[in-house]
Amino acid sequence: MADLSSLGTVFIERQKRLEEFLEEHGLDALALNPGPSLVYLSGLRFHLMERPVVALFVPSKPPQIIHPELEKAKLQGLPYPVESFPYGEDPLEWPRVFQQACRAASLKQGRIGVEPTRLRLLEYRYLKEAAPEANFVSAESLLASLRQCKDEEEIATIRQAVRIAEHALLATLPSIRPGLTEREIAAELGLQLLRAGSDMEFPFQPIVSAGPNSANPHATPGDRPLQLGDLLVIDWGATYHGYVSDLTRTFAIGEVGEELRRIAYLVEKANVAGRAAIAPGVPCEAVDRAARQVIAQGGYGEYFIHRTGHGIGMEGHEPPYIREGNTTALQPGMTFTVEPGIYLPGRGGVRIEDDVVVTHEGAETLSDLPRALQTLPI
Amino acid sequence: MADLSSLGTVFIERQKRLEEFLEEHGLDALALNPGPSLVYLSGLRFHLMERPVVALFVPSKPPQIIHPELEKAKLQGLPYPVESFPYGEDPLEWPRVFQQACRAASLKQGRIGVEPTRLRLLEYRYLKEAAPEANFVSAESLLASLRQCKDEEEIATIRQAVRIAEHALLATLPSIRPGLTEREIAAELGLQLLRAGSDMEFPFQPIVSAGPNSANPHATPGDRPLQLGDLLVIDWGATYHGYVSDLTRTFAIGEVGEELRRIAYLVEKANVAGRAAIAPGVPCEAVDRAARQVIAQGGYGEYFIHRTGHGIGMEGHEPPYIREGNTTALQPGMTFTVEPGIYLPGRGGVRIEDDVVVTHEGAETLSDLPRALQTLPI
Repeated sequence: MADLSSLGTVFIERQKRLEEFLEEHGLDALALNPGPSLVYLSGLRFHLMERPVVALFVPSKPPQIIHPELEKAKLQGLPYPVESFPYGEDPLEWPRVFQQACRAASLKQGRIGVEPTRLRLLEYRYLKEAAPEANFVSAESLLASLRQCKDEEEIATIRQAVRIAEHALLATLPSIRPGLTEREIAAELGLQLLRAGSDMEFPFQPIVSAGPNSANPHATPGDRPLQLGDLLVIDWGATYHGYVSDLTRTFAIGEVGEELRRIAYLVEKANVAGRAAIAPGVPCEAVDRAARQVIAQGGYGEYFIHRTGHGIGMEGHEPPYIREGNTTALQPGMTFTVEPGIYLPGRGGVRIEDDVVVTHEGAETLSDLPRALQTLPI
Repeated sequence: MADLSSLGTVFIERQKRLEEFLEEHGLDALALNPGPSLVYLSGLRFHLMERPVVALFVPSKPPQIIHPELEKAKLQGLPYPVESFPYGEDPLEWPRVFQQACRAASLKQGRIGVEPTRLRLLEYRYLKEAAPEANFVSAESLLASLRQCKDEEEIATIRQAVRIAEHALLATLPSIRPGLTEREIAAELGLQLLRAGSDMEFPFQPIVSAGPNSANPHATPGDRPLQLGDLLVIDWGATYHGYVSDLTRTFAIGEVGEELRRIAYLVEKANVAGRAAIAPGVPCEAVDRAARQVIAQGGYGEYFIHRTGHGIGMEGHEPPYIREGNTTALQPGMTFTVEPGIYLPGRGGVRIEDDVVVTHEGAETLSDLPRALQTLPI
């Protein structure tokens, strides 16, 4: 696959689509700092550290980029015009550059869309100072509409991110044995992810949690050695050309107790039920309910303590969110996780997570590693 | 080295020190979201995605943590008390939880320190709504004072991050030959970083830039094959127990032209001069001047387009910044980079970067790979 940055027409088309969405959402502009939305619209990647970087998208104008002088090479050779507002190393210069950019963009007032989960107070304050009468409103729903239905190339890229993750796990499993720590397994999995072709920026640090730690859905891998009788939860993903995968499988280390086997069986059924409920027009919450019902009927409803899934794409978590209360109707091209779990405090947990894409007929599951509780070492 | 999270007394001591700093800086509280400052003060790490997480530090109260319900296991077994404000999956609940926390912290008004480069608009708006009369001010200088002088254990950890990075580069060099792409070299280096013992979260994606691309200080590795006559800049770092290293070396691929050799020589001398200028009490800008003078006198002043260095620690870029205009006096325990460079547009660039710690007598350079232009393949 070609480097996205060479596919200029994609960005031009997306910037045009943005203009329509801005009008629909009653916004005069979009102000983004570096991150997936900016990459989606422009292909531009910046180091996001102590220096502010903002791109202003205003209908009928080229994108206006406020950036450190030393990043200017990134704006050369782009397949679309930009207006550049570079600044030097002295922070005292920066407000003036934001003012120039906002003046050039005619942004002194109006409604400016921003991304609350990405925009930092740093950039927000410079923007607000430069456009004091503007109204900064969340562009989350606009950006969700713009990004959540993936095109064929995006789906192919996610599919590849899934393949890479699966290969990495298969290469890691043979080394897993009692005595190894969670941290050691996570390190080996990280190495295998790179070897299998993942980009270096993983979507998240792999979660490897065993025994009591597996009852914590967001556990950090620790130094406890694997023991016979443990459940082992591995939640991992790869990044490929900027798109991610996110999978979870649960294993038994030797023989595990009957109740742990029972919850593994329930979670597997819940995963199947959740995925079976997916079709265009179905509200997100119906997928959550389908998975949750299996676990509730099995008597473990109170131990399924998170939503059933979240969108994936250029971010590890993005819309659509598969949870009670989200009535958003699924559309072809949406890609998300289905990841029911049961967590018994102090004893162990199970999660089984797949990545799916909504099709015109229903859904395609992109991942196909076995879901039934598998015993290790094999 | 033990896991930092088990070193409870460190966090209790740091939280006490924070109370003194809050008083000195005239602040009533500090509001942090997940990131290095929160890890420094509490050892707490959270996934920072679509759900807001905030810790409120108020003198004489335990830290108050607003967090998703599913992260609650992270707050168990901490070596100090915390007050927990969990919320569920429905964002409509979240404002109420922020209000409860701000009420419990008596934060309806007062001066609340925040971190502009970390706090997102998401958390800021919930905080502002919950404490509308409070004044949110930058705690950057407070956090710099708190974090920028490293203790012995922190320095030992950075030293290990430097060792890991050096080993990884030495393991990568033998594979470098004409025809290999920047991206392939970066992937191999990433693999070697993990193998040498780096944490999976690298401080930044390695920069591997050759030929014309090496004239871009923040280049992204691309698909151009290495050619004889190229300069090759490799800027990379490892993370060890959450602390980072950040190094750069420049290589010649076969024979390179005379001017490229000349700038490599000048940069090497500038690196030496910058490091030689370091001592307690010396202003940051004096280190920048010492390095810059060598390059300016050599006739390339206008091609050294960035500051001489930046602090390193739990972040890849943090105070102190080694630039003209920064009169902050160096103190023992400060750790930062010295990384002069010369960039000739369209032709090539050279950067040589080392990590140093200020000592009572002067400075110790933590990195010791050769700095003179080395020709590859060896």
